[in-house]
Amino acid sequence: MEQRVSLITLGVDDVDRATAFYEAIGWRGQVVEGTAFFQAGPLAVVLWSRASLAEDAGVPDGSPSTGPAPFGGVALAHNVRSFDEVDAVIEAARQVGATVTKEPAPTFYGGYAGYFADLDGHLWEVAHNPGFALDVVGALTLPDFGAAPPE
Amino acid sequence: MEQRVSLITLGVDDVDRATAFYEAIGWRGQVVEGTAFFQAGPLAVVLWSRASLAEDAGVPDGSPSTGPAPFGGVALAHNVRSFDEVDAVIEAARQVGATVTKEPAPTFYGGYAGYFADLDGHLWEVAHNPGFALDVVGALTLPDFGAAPPE
Repeated sequence: MEQRVSLITLGVDDVDRATAFYEAIGWRGQVVEGTAFFQAGPLAVVLWSRASLAEDAGVPDGSPSTGPAPFGGVALAHNVRSFDEVDAVIEAARQVGATVTKEPAPTFYGGYAGYFADLDGHLWEVAHNPGFALDVVGALTLPDFGAAPPE
Repeated sequence: MEQRVSLITLGVDDVDRATAFYEAIGWRGQVVEGTAFFQAGPLAVVLWSRASLAEDAGVPDGSPSTGPAPFGGVALAHNVRSFDEVDAVIEAARQVGATVTKEPAPTFYGGYAGYFADLDGHLWEVAHNPGFALDVVGALTLPDFGAAPPE
């Protein structure tokens, strides 16, 4: 596993409201299908429904007693260059004690991803997304989604 | 506020145990005074005591009912180039509805920092740390702490 964070996804109650907040402090991004994407240097900060994020990660969005730690509404993503690399990283994490909360599987966007929780419950998505380019040093560049920038 | 994430701090129960996990999946960093620092491209991933992180951020490390959202054990840091810029970013966030959980104040490492929680409770530290260089594009490079790398 390379030392790389590709995306930070913040689960929020209301994406429009959260997007307006980040715009108000000066950020600019793109909203696509109810999700806000902000390029931040070589990674992306993403605002997404907290419930959707929990479901995607395979963890309960509920009480602190239901998992290794309460779902904090945050997931880090480690993007890789192939389907095989997703499997390899998930297996490597499992072998050293991580809890695989979602086994790698095809995603709705044509990629492939799984999630593990580290020993303290921090969630990592390991993903191959053909639409999100990784350059030679692993920097992620969001595509132009073709959507209007948020108002 | 520039679109930059400088550090991702993961609060953990046992820094040694957590460090061993990240080493086991291939990461390499430095452990300094009970805190593990991993350079990840232009930012740093930090493992720190969850209780210390909560205390530093001025939030309760307790039940979900005590804050705008349960403390998820994660804080993002936005590092800036001056003390004044810390104040300016914290004020800008406050003006648009953020909860300032810790007013800017001098830090033990000779810097200056405050924290705000966004509308969903996600914590951002806004910090000026003279020891953590920001280059012209805002990339953060950890110093050589002079410590042995973790075993």
